[in-house]
Amino acid sequence: MKADKGKRIIVEFQPSGLRLVLDEPMMLLDAARQAGILLRSDCGGKGVCGKCRIQLLSALEKHSPSRVESFHLQPNEIASGVRLACETIADSDLKVFIPSYSIIESQVLQIEGIQGKIAVNPAVHQYTISIQPPSLSDLRSDMTRIKQYLGEEELTADIDVLAVIPTILRSCNWNLNLILRDKKVIHARPKAHRKIVGLAVDVGSTKLACYLVDLDSGETLAARGAPNPQLAFGEDIMNRLSYALQSPQNVGHLQSLVFDAINHSSKILTTQVGLDQADIADACLVGNTAMHHLFLNLPVTSLAASPFVPIFADSIYPPASSIGMYAMPGCSVYVPPIIAGFVGSDHLAFLLAEGFGEDGRVRIGIDIGTNTEIALQKGERIVSVSTASGPAFEGAHIRFGMRAAPGAIEHVNLNENGEAEIQVIGNRLPVGICGSGILDVIAEMRRIGMLNNRGRIEKKFPSVMLDEKGKPFIQLNEGKKPITLSQNDIDQVLLAKGAIRAGIDVLMDYLKVIPEDIEDITIAGAFGTFMLPEHAICIGMLPKVSLEKVRAVGNAAGSGARMMLISSSERKKAEYLSKRIEYLELTIYPDFANFFAKGIQA
Amino acid sequence: MKADKGKRIIVEFQPSGLRLVLDEPMMLLDAARQAGILLRSDCGGKGVCGKCRIQLLSALEKHSPSRVESFHLQPNEIASGVRLACETIADSDLKVFIPSYSIIESQVLQIEGIQGKIAVNPAVHQYTISIQPPSLSDLRSDMTRIKQYLGEEELTADIDVLAVIPTILRSCNWNLNLILRDKKVIHARPKAHRKIVGLAVDVGSTKLACYLVDLDSGETLAARGAPNPQLAFGEDIMNRLSYALQSPQNVGHLQSLVFDAINHSSKILTTQVGLDQADIADACLVGNTAMHHLFLNLPVTSLAASPFVPIFADSIYPPASSIGMYAMPGCSVYVPPIIAGFVGSDHLAFLLAEGFGEDGRVRIGIDIGTNTEIALQKGERIVSVSTASGPAFEGAHIRFGMRAAPGAIEHVNLNENGEAEIQVIGNRLPVGICGSGILDVIAEMRRIGMLNNRGRIEKKFPSVMLDEKGKPFIQLNEGKKPITLSQNDIDQVLLAKGAIRAGIDVLMDYLKVIPEDIEDITIAGAFGTFMLPEHAICIGMLPKVSLEKVRAVGNAAGSGARMMLISSSERKKAEYLSKRIEYLELTIYPDFANFFAKGIQA
Repeated sequence: MKADKGKRIIVEFQPSGLRLVLDEPMMLLDAARQAGILLRSDCGGKGVCGKCRIQLLSALEKHSPSRVESFHLQPNEIASGVRLACETIADSDLKVFIPSYSIIESQVLQIEGIQGKIAVNPAVHQYTISIQPPSLSDLRSDMTRIKQYLGEEELTADIDVLAVIPTILRSCNWNLNLILRDKKVIHARPKAHRKIVGLAVDVGSTKLACYLVDLDSGETLAARGAPNPQLAFGEDIMNRLSYALQSPQNVGHLQSLVFDAINHSSKILTTQVGLDQADIADACLVGNTAMHHLFLNLPVTSLAASPFVPIFADSIYPPASSIGMYAMPGCSVYVPPIIAGFVGSDHLAFLLAEGFGEDGRVRIGIDIGTNTEIALQKGERIVSVSTASGPAFEGAHIRFGMRAAPGAIEHVNLNENGEAEIQVIGNRLPVGICGSGILDVIAEMRRIGMLNNRGRIEKKFPSVMLDEKGKPFIQLNEGKKPITLSQNDIDQVLLAKGAIRAGIDVLMDYLKVIPEDIEDITIAGAFGTFMLPEHAICIGMLPKVSLEKVRAVGNAAGSGARMMLISSSERKKAEYLSKRIEYLELTIYPDFANFFAKGIQA
Repeated sequence: MKADKGKRIIVEFQPSGLRLVLDEPMMLLDAARQAGILLRSDCGGKGVCGKCRIQLLSALEKHSPSRVESFHLQPNEIASGVRLACETIADSDLKVFIPSYSIIESQVLQIEGIQGKIAVNPAVHQYTISIQPPSLSDLRSDMTRIKQYLGEEELTADIDVLAVIPTILRSCNWNLNLILRDKKVIHARPKAHRKIVGLAVDVGSTKLACYLVDLDSGETLAARGAPNPQLAFGEDIMNRLSYALQSPQNVGHLQSLVFDAINHSSKILTTQVGLDQADIADACLVGNTAMHHLFLNLPVTSLAASPFVPIFADSIYPPASSIGMYAMPGCSVYVPPIIAGFVGSDHLAFLLAEGFGEDGRVRIGIDIGTNTEIALQKGERIVSVSTASGPAFEGAHIRFGMRAAPGAIEHVNLNENGEAEIQVIGNRLPVGICGSGILDVIAEMRRIGMLNNRGRIEKKFPSVMLDEKGKPFIQLNEGKKPITLSQNDIDQVLLAKGAIRAGIDVLMDYLKVIPEDIEDITIAGAFGTFMLPEHAICIGMLPKVSLEKVRAVGNAAGSGARMMLISSSERKKAEYLSKRIEYLELTIYPDFANFFAKGIQA
């Protein structure tokens, strides 16, 4: 498997034509990453998910299929050169075709209005001033003049800002545009009439939602969703943490992947509105605790093993330049507090946006993801948990699973014979099924008796099919590429919904809440938007409440981030809220195992 | 004068043997700088001071003396190859001897005790702590644990510090040594028992006085004086400002010269006491306004032309790393306020150390240098001026002038015939005369009638000699290298003392003070220490007060810097004092010209 000593290996990627030169043999998944091609790799390259498919255009004879490849791939695929990038080593020159379905692609991004009326009260302001030049009878320093003009005796500035002020003043007829954060001049530039903007980002483990906001009006000017490029290091956060644990450089790599993508988005967004990145004067980034530590380039040792604790929980306001974000020199990035090792600032932002803590109603807030964060409010108390629901609702660990993207089956009806009627995002031929579709299938299967209350597919039901090993599955469409759902797929979903339900039940037990008390259930995230509440209740993911109490709020974390971006009062409110939220550790809750066992029943 | 195209020029410096390779012809003064040899160059390379003497050991025939060289050098010197480095261009291979008298050398540094009792109250403290590790029932973050251990809820830390804390805690059995500035953790390290120290520096235009101070006890552990390497760019600050104005890179160069020297001194000082530079946890740097702007790498445009104004006057506390000072990561450098374009933080430090502002006595504080700062206190008011006294008292513009260093004539008595009895620093053969010596000569000449009240040497006086042009001079010693003083030298000194006296008189006029009111005159700097007060009064540099009221306080600016280093209260006091001090611009004071005309009389 070794290349000739000193001989270089050339890997050519099609359709882009990109050529990568290697000094030594490398796994094709890594080679693709090095070439900037982010292949889907939900399992992080362990040969488990089978999603990093590529097609060899040369040297096929040298790459006979491995056992893992034989398991994941059809014989006709293998014959035509399809392989898994995580199982193929480029040890001699190679020509590779990357099918579009293997590339991490953009997702549907929803932009919600910021709920309620927020008074716009940003931390950063700009002032254009015109001051008197010095004379022998007025020898005040440049800064003293500025301070007295603004009536702000406490005004400060760092050296790099002090260094440009005298030159601008003397070359611009003593006019100056100043950007102030509180009492600090963070940037000085010639008299300008451009608006200053802020960037809010919800750093999700799969998606980066970027919002460009006018800091004067508070208006969201533009928004953009992009995949988190860390996906190439595993859909599951634990895979990314494993990579990060290998060396501090790897943490830095994961950080720079995130900021490369954020910078790319902010470039596009600022250009859209006729500005550039140097007009970004403030920012707010939220994310779960692992994302938070990674985008701050902090070691993740304490997050990778039990007991999971963060390094710190308070808000922090580092310079954008120190973490690799492009912005106005002097711009800092407000990073709100986090709650616990698995409850991050995205959850806090969600609860802030939804007005948790503003009254004492009995409310549940759920953010469904690989880890699902759930908060229960009752009176003065707000208690949160994190439950390891796994990525089934985002399509991982499901044979044909995918995120809510064009080509995904988002809704399914079954008739009494179990024949499916499907609805596909983008009205295309289906290529997979997303969380809401899977939820529909299971709820419908239960309704018509195709699935029993132990979660097993009834083999005898008409339209249930059996694979070569006699295991039952159902097929959702006809055609050359049928989308199917197996017993294993259903097990994954039941485990996920069981974990969520157990989290809710523990919280209700802890705060002595019964389903009838619940006034409101808010569900954040794309899955919540597409999911039918009656199905979520039907399969027991949610407690039995009347349907109108269940509400999807889309990317509420992004809304909360924007609120904190445009208002210092919202930052204070969030910091206060973070101190009020109690974190409950599920794994040591008495009877948690029973709650979970009950939860996974269909 | 051009080298062959592409041919390299090799300049060899003796006695060091250093060889410098040049791609194109270069002035020898610059070549020496490039080789790290700092030649005396009081005039900044303009051919005026004649102090950058070197001896050509080769290619003598190619370097016939210029007019400037013929003026400064004796025929026998020219014959033996002596030239001026600022007049010699290295345009072919050259061997050069650098005589020791042409090299900027170390000066005598005095270390004064910090006057009065200062309560030690540093801004930076260290704590060694031992905390409980997390468990499933105690999931507080690392920082929350630390905050609660220290009982400091407001504790913050920057990302780079947060990044090391978890690793140290987990590898050191949950022990940790923290360095705090106010409520901020600036550095974390494994449990340590070493003391933390601070560095106070008086950045003089000729001398850098560095003091290493124990931050717990307030004790000065070690101190070191070193020449300011910027001297190679001119003794006169205006020459350095000219260089700085040429490009921002030049400002950066002058900054790095200062910090190279400070870092070299701090390395020696910390090693002396068994520590290293990473134990320096706080610092305080004072200097005149030009030094202040240059060591902060700030543009000097506003200081280089009238009206002279600083960019800012407040204190600033930048990270040591941002200005090039080696210290503990997280160490910042406290830079106290300045008063005006020509009254810097060194003057403030001097007034602080001398207790100005603590009572209402009529007091004068004088810091003699190229610019002499003078403060007059009366009741609630403290008024300061800066007067352009020139560098005569530091030996510049005086044929045999030098600073108070070994070989300098520091005291002179004349008998009634005008024959000199001299006292030389270090009891050597004299090589020049320093400020106090010159002051003595003039006072003695006046006493015996060798100098009239218009400041002219009486040619008819016995022992007065005449040069080839018939101009009078006096000779202070016999031997092969006689030290002389000419009418021109005396003029320079009278101009200097006249400027100082005019400053004092203007202040007294402004605050309606007569000599009899004066309770105390404090003189800072080396010149003040060596100078005889009776001679200063005799030649009219100081008003007529009784001798016991005149006191030399040595490097009081260094004492003030140390006080601010070990006490936050002294910093507050200095900041308050800086706001109380009024700056008076001499050049627009009514009748200033008359005060000056009166002041220069002998």
